[in-house]
Amino acid sequence: MEYRIEKDTMGEVQVPADVYWGAQTQRSIQNFPIAQDINKMPKEIIKAFAYLKKAAAITNYEAGVLAPEKSDLIGRVCDEILAGKLDDQFPLVVWQTGSGTQSNMNCNEVIAYRGHVLQGGTLGDKQKYLHPNDDVNKSQSSNDTYPTAMHIAAYKILVEVTIPGITKLRDTLKAKAEAFKEVVKIGRTHFMDATPLTLGQEFSGYVSQLDHGLRAINNTLAHLSELALGGTAVGTGINTPDGYAENVARHIADLTGLPFITAENKFEALAAHDAIVEAHGALKTVAVSLMKIGNDIRMLSSGPRSGIGEIYIPDNEPGSSIMPGKVNPTQCEAMTMVAAQVMGNDVAIGIGGSNGHFELNVFKPLMAYNFLHSARLIGDVCVSFNDKCAVGIEPLHDNIKKHVNNSLMLVTALNTKIGYYKAAEIAQTAHKNGSTLKETAVALGYLTPEEFDEWVKPEDMVGKI
Amino acid sequence: MEYRIEKDTMGEVQVPADVYWGAQTQRSIQNFPIAQDINKMPKEIIKAFAYLKKAAAITNYEAGVLAPEKSDLIGRVCDEILAGKLDDQFPLVVWQTGSGTQSNMNCNEVIAYRGHVLQGGTLGDKQKYLHPNDDVNKSQSSNDTYPTAMHIAAYKILVEVTIPGITKLRDTLKAKAEAFKEVVKIGRTHFMDATPLTLGQEFSGYVSQLDHGLRAINNTLAHLSELALGGTAVGTGINTPDGYAENVARHIADLTGLPFITAENKFEALAAHDAIVEAHGALKTVAVSLMKIGNDIRMLSSGPRSGIGEIYIPDNEPGSSIMPGKVNPTQCEAMTMVAAQVMGNDVAIGIGGSNGHFELNVFKPLMAYNFLHSARLIGDVCVSFNDKCAVGIEPLHDNIKKHVNNSLMLVTALNTKIGYYKAAEIAQTAHKNGSTLKETAVALGYLTPEEFDEWVKPEDMVGKI
Amino acid sequence: MEYRIEKDTMGEVQVPADVYWGAQTQRSIQNFPIAQDINKMPKEIIKAFAYLKKAAAITNYEAGVLAPEKSDLIGRVCDEILAGKLDDQFPLVVWQTGSGTQSNMNCNEVIAYRGHVLQGGTLGDKQKYLHPNDDVNKSQSSNDTYPTAMHIAAYKILVEVTIPGITKLRDTLKAKAEAFKEVVKIGRTHFMDATPLTLGQEFSGYVSQLDHGLRAINNTLAHLSELALGGTAVGTGINTPDGYAENVARHIADLTGLPFITAENKFEALAAHDAIVEAHGALKTVAVSLMKIGNDIRMLSSGPRSGIGEIYIPDNEPGSSIMPGKVNPTQCEAMTMVAAQVMGNDVAIGIGGSNGHFELNVFKPLMAYNFLHSARLIGDVCVSFNDKCAVGIEPLHDNIKKHVNNSLMLVTALNTKIGYYKAAEIAQTAHKNGSTLKETAVALGYLTPEEFDEWVKPEDMVGKI
Amino acid sequence: MEYRIEKDTMGEVQVPADVYWGAQTQRSIQNFPIAQDINKMPKEIIKAFAYLKKAAAITNYEAGVLAPEKSDLIGRVCDEILAGKLDDQFPLVVWQTGSGTQSNMNCNEVIAYRGHVLQGGTLGDKQKYLHPNDDVNKSQSSNDTYPTAMHIAAYKILVEVTIPGITKLRDTLKAKAEAFKEVVKIGRTHFMDATPLTLGQEFSGYVSQLDHGLRAINNTLAHLSELALGGTAVGTGINTPDGYAENVARHIADLTGLPFITAENKFEALAAHDAIVEAHGALKTVAVSLMKIGNDIRMLSSGPRSGIGEIYIPDNEPGSSIMPGKVNPTQCEAMTMVAAQVMGNDVAIGIGGSNGHFELNVFKPLMAYNFLHSARLIGDVCVSFNDKCAVGIEPLHDNIKKHVNNSLMLVTALNTKIGYYKAAEIAQTAHKNGSTLKETAVALGYLTPEEFDEWVKPEDMVGKI
Repeated sequence: MEYRIEKDTMGEVQVPADVYWGAQTQRSIQNFPIAQDINKMPKEIIKAFAYLKKAAAITNYEAGVLAPEKSDLIGRVCDEILAGKLDDQFPLVVWQTGSGTQSNMNCNEVIAYRGHVLQGGTLGDKQKYLHPNDDVNKSQSSNDTYPTAMHIAAYKILVEVTIPGITKLRDTLKAKAEAFKEVVKIGRTHFMDATPLTLGQEFSGYVSQLDHGLRAINNTLAHLSELALGGTAVGTGINTPDGYAENVARHIADLTGLPFITAENKFEALAAHDAIVEAHGALKTVAVSLMKIGNDIRMLSSGPRSGIGEIYIPDNEPGSSIMPGKVNPTQCEAMTMVAAQVMGNDVAIGIGGSNGHFELNVFKPLMAYNFLHSARLIGDVCVSFNDKCAVGIEPLHDNIKKHVNNSLMLVTALNTKIGYYKAAEIAQTAHKNGSTLKETAVALGYLTPEEFDEWVKPEDMVGKI
Repeated sequence: MEYRIEKDTMGEVQVPADVYWGAQTQRSIQNFPIAQDINKMPKEIIKAFAYLKKAAAITNYEAGVLAPEKSDLIGRVCDEILAGKLDDQFPLVVWQTGSGTQSNMNCNEVIAYRGHVLQGGTLGDKQKYLHPNDDVNKSQSSNDTYPTAMHIAAYKILVEVTIPGITKLRDTLKAKAEAFKEVVKIGRTHFMDATPLTLGQEFSGYVSQLDHGLRAINNTLAHLSELALGGTAVGTGINTPDGYAENVARHIADLTGLPFITAENKFEALAAHDAIVEAHGALKTVAVSLMKIGNDIRMLSSGPRSGIGEIYIPDNEPGSSIMPGKVNPTQCEAMTMVAAQVMGNDVAIGIGGSNGHFELNVFKPLMAYNFLHSARLIGDVCVSFNDKCAVGIEPLHDNIKKHVNNSLMLVTALNTKIGYYKAAEIAQTAHKNGSTLKETAVALGYLTPEEFDEWVKPEDMVGKI
Repeated sequence: MEYRIEKDTMGEVQVPADVYWGAQTQRSIQNFPIAQDINKMPKEIIKAFAYLKKAAAITNYEAGVLAPEKSDLIGRVCDEILAGKLDDQFPLVVWQTGSGTQSNMNCNEVIAYRGHVLQGGTLGDKQKYLHPNDDVNKSQSSNDTYPTAMHIAAYKILVEVTIPGITKLRDTLKAKAEAFKEVVKIGRTHFMDATPLTLGQEFSGYVSQLDHGLRAINNTLAHLSELALGGTAVGTGINTPDGYAENVARHIADLTGLPFITAENKFEALAAHDAIVEAHGALKTVAVSLMKIGNDIRMLSSGPRSGIGEIYIPDNEPGSSIMPGKVNPTQCEAMTMVAAQVMGNDVAIGIGGSNGHFELNVFKPLMAYNFLHSARLIGDVCVSFNDKCAVGIEPLHDNIKKHVNNSLMLVTALNTKIGYYKAAEIAQTAHKNGSTLKETAVALGYLTPEEFDEWVKPEDMVGKI
Repeated sequence: MEYRIEKDTMGEVQVPADVYWGAQTQRSIQNFPIAQDINKMPKEIIKAFAYLKKAAAITNYEAGVLAPEKSDLIGRVCDEILAGKLDDQFPLVVWQTGSGTQSNMNCNEVIAYRGHVLQGGTLGDKQKYLHPNDDVNKSQSSNDTYPTAMHIAAYKILVEVTIPGITKLRDTLKAKAEAFKEVVKIGRTHFMDATPLTLGQEFSGYVSQLDHGLRAINNTLAHLSELALGGTAVGTGINTPDGYAENVARHIADLTGLPFITAENKFEALAAHDAIVEAHGALKTVAVSLMKIGNDIRMLSSGPRSGIGEIYIPDNEPGSSIMPGKVNPTQCEAMTMVAAQVMGNDVAIGIGGSNGHFELNVFKPLMAYNFLHSARLIGDVCVSFNDKCAVGIEPLHDNIKKHVNNSLMLVTALNTKIGYYKAAEIAQTAHKNGSTLKETAVALGYLTPEEFDEWVKPEDMVGKI
């Protein structure tokens, strides 16, 4: 490979000749050979940096501290990054400095050197038109840019991937709840036969879970909308022009179309990432919901002959390499695995969030990585589960009818007629003798066959539907 | 011990002669000998049951399905429970049936039998005036009462213990932030010397964390305000009179003075406890904040001679059994231990919440126990930390001044004057030579002593205060 | 209440007149009003302190630094503590100083003052015969006594409660595996019908899990057997006589009958509690096993009419306050709730363990509390589950037979005869048509009825049993 | 793109013309569009499959159920996979079926079709020489191959990456402990000044932690050495020849050079992955140790002027984009972020491990992914931290001396001379007056200057070194 020499305040570094990054990026590659093939800094963070670098350049220009040409040039490179044209220029991993400084410098260097080339220079030029620190990073610090990038990336993925994914699944389940609203089936509590409900009611519980989950996520957006930018090194805003924090937040809001504002308190914004902890708590709540829904669907569809078998789910692929003809609830499995992952990520985020010291939390890349992972996984798996499973769910009426009619818990309808204790005696006797509720109730002399037929109707036991 | 015989649908059980509980409570004692000395069902749950049983009795009476005398009698016993007069009548543990049925029946039995005695009967009477199932539990199931009790207890402890505790600490920290707003000190990022800020600014970050934490908790109250009661066995409301769910929620709201409403979807309310998961996520967020604050305070107060030593915290007790005269940041230690506990409880709650099946989640007591534990711990520890530590915090001006004046990072002020690279050279040279920034800057010929004095003023580097 | 005055190095403190504790215990009560009714320092820790204080007294006497009368007197009080006679003298909570200093001083004070009384003095005497620091705590620090107490208590509870509890359940499951070894039943993978196995084989998996779990716990005992005592303040052993660490460990081993040794490295032993983290990791592994076993048993016993219903589990109590005659798998529920708690405790312990600084970890009481909680819960719940559920498990042969004979996955036996693809065609066709495998196989012309009967025998598909 | 048609038991599928995979792999790509760019099935799993497929082919050949040419051909493709020549043929993600069936089929298809090509055929041939199910998967099921691959991959990464990485760091720390063994420094407990120890003793604690951690990992290898292969569909070994399980384990042991054996109980081996849970518990224990070590190193090196500053760590890169000349403990930050990740992964693994049902755990890919992630991260970060930080650590003698000489806790040496209370009075008075211990002790009249000098020597307070 050919190299060129780049410099930073510590001296010279050999950098591959044709890359846009510089000395500090290269040092990070060499200093952090940790899971480099699998744990690149998430691309959402890089894009978020592009937004904020462009916004900072505009703001600096407007404040009179950056030449308009430089501001424009920075913006042009940022647009290239957003268009995905420079994806291979961001080689750093999550496991670097905990402030994300090296990824900030990676952005600064790529913008400066790519800008220099756009402006007509070459990578080999000793003197470049844009300086990574003095121009691209002007009025900024890693300490306020990285958390700003975290909030931009987190907010964006929530509204672009996570919330739409959950909503899609929610809407399908809502439609199913409607479609199945008169399908009377056995209820199960403690995994045991219980009084009936409709399949639509059962599904309405899932809808309600996701509705509340969406509300929980939305509740956390306000905190995420607060941006650290303008706090610079320790939150005091040293080296920023007047009005910078408010203006740069406004520009970021304009560029992203999202309601970002400057954080009221910059000291929190650098030293703690409670907004990420809080928002991921909402993601974890959704994960908990998805685990429940995934488990229910897989159990309801179990069988085909020796399980519960009350719903059909689509057969997407052969299920077994050894058992011919087997079909499995694989979308449920992907979804529940995602749920477990998100619950684990929640702990990593909590630990990272709790271990900041003084003016800076240095678990930033860890927190960003886990947050974006969870947000992405939930969004993607909801779509996958929706498209490949939920939309195709249908009741298996024969099994449903058999189960509800067999159930001894229909006896509950008699509580208000003959009291809990006599009703219990009927159920227990029927269970012991393997007889039906009706014949037992009559044999015990507690009611007539006509009374039984009038009082014990599954369809009357499901309330308003 | 003397015994009497009580019966349930499974037969006779020997019960201590003088207790108000009955057969099912006694069976639970015998069937669940698990950590009985340390894990009683939380008293907050028992009190919550008292509210809901009284509200149900009133509602049943108003609906014409319960005699007014019985309703009154149930209410009188509930008042006794709320007054703490029957505390020793609730011997069951958390580790029982996952629906909390046995604690529901414990309440039903105690209310029925104590009511019978209040009404003039004796515990030995075969026939009691109130029936645990048919009267006290009328229009109810464990499946809707226990989650209702969870929400009542959770909501109450949040507004009565947790939020006031956090607020108290928040207010003290706010006052300190005001008081210290002009105390210029060194900032620390990566645990390393950084540019200055004021001690007040540092504390304002803690205030902002707690403000956001309080908002996060408040955001979760809406979901907690939804009550399952009226769903009965599986969410369909079987065996309830018309309008029952709405009315009983209204009565609970009246009795507690809190804005409870009936859950729009009862199927979710029985089968999932995402409201608890979500609200505990907010508690965990606060725990994360407290860990940060506790760590900062202990580190800032470290020393007394060989640490950081920038603040004084009260000496509450001798700190060492071997090192005479030692004083330790013990309130920080209690607070950070609580934070760790809450973070662990969060995982237990998530696992419990994710493992519900079909119409019922059977990790209810686990979830209630952990939630109430966390809510209590946070509330209590905030008050303890506030009273015994935060209120007494004072700056140690000598150390603060020494540290800020020593700091090489004051050089940052020169970025906008001479550029990042020359500024770095000054700092690196001063560090290598053990010299001051000023003498180094002048020796390197980058500025005059007068320029240095004008440009490098810590008090000008802290922004608006 | 009447008071007396006690003193420590900070001054005078009012103490209830008739308690054995002194000034420092009293300060802790007043300084840490945190969950005082529910989170007392675990009694196992107090007993462990009694062992180590007695051992230290003997060792100090043998080293010539403590008078024989004082050593004897200390030992006598320790015996009283071990006999449970002074249980009410240990009022402190978990949420105190993170070194457990206050509980160490509580022990020192109670031993000194009770000893003084035993020796003929009165609590009101200004001068006491034994000094809490200079006599009872001689050659000790909280920093080495508390972690020593943690290891003693952890080791003891594992061998006295946890391991015997797990072993009891393991032995019952082993007996069931034997008893059921010829009961051929359907297998289920992905919760879907699969090839057959025997019920005994299914249970043998649980036995193997617990066997491995027991081995995992046993693997961690070596690290737990290492005692910090002798490290005193920071691990250097300051203020201990020659040979003290080895001798005191030997005396503790003698008194407890357990193979304790002195830790090779005292710096680790004070500053980190990886032994607790490691051992609790084994407990968590067992919790994971118990969750699986509890889930399987509850699902296998589900029904009674509309579930899987392949095993009977004992009916221990009425299962529902509203559904008469309902019986639930309540022991499974207690067991799986315990599993969730232990998994949460594991996180609290990991966080506590990771946050030690320099020469001392100050999350000691948190770690002890969670460890002892988990160890107790697992031991207790295994016994409860064993006695009230596992011993009574019986196969329900009718359902078992019906399920296995229905299963389409018996077709797997044909793979080696006609290939995977034709076998799949048979299963898929039978599934579509609702026909049996045999009639389908013959109709498709892939084999004769005789071949089917010879090749497809569930009892031949279960391997060696 | 050009396509060819492949078939499985569900019908035809379009597959890119030039890939070696077939219908089922392609279905999985289409059915699971979940984080496809970031969560590929770990390459370690693919390699492990190569070992086991080759071993199975040999065993099948030896058992007379597979032609020698087919066995050879399968082995040749497996060798290509191990050599990394087919890396781009494994496009599936973690979030697929929970049994890993699709990755098993991916391997089966690639081996079959690449084998067909090696043998002279073309990908377009309808009939291929090797059949994915009947040949490559012979005597196997996903249900036993995937967990076998998990154990092979887990064991290999532990012995090849994790253990060597930890050992490398441990050895460096051991050398530092030796080198620094006479550097007397202040101890710190509760982050407060305490009695002295040597820097070597402090580092010896880290060594002891890692030694115990290595032992903990080694303790879990026995369980990981047990292979599920031979259990096939549900653990009964259906469709395997005699002696297959033992033989195939032996061949895997030969091929890998690692002591694998067949699992004694195959039912556990398919239905539960406690070995992974247990082994990851050991990794988490090491993570906890690394968090402690990383925190200590960053705090000890803090400053350079206003921190603790007792050790020098290498300056690897400029630390700040805004603060010129700043250097940060970035390797500590990477290491502590890794620790947080591993602690989160531990929860994901525990949840996955606990949620198996009946004969199969369907969280296998999740568990493999998290395990391999943690094992890799720990191994890599230990090497990175070692090479870029630990090897360069040096004492900063000036600060060390200043701190130890200042410490009031040297007074502890006087306990055995004048008693704890008088010693405390000296320390407290000196603290209040800002005076030295010596002048205070003499002023109080408790000892002579000569006695002080003789009794209070830091170098005598550090025990045996």
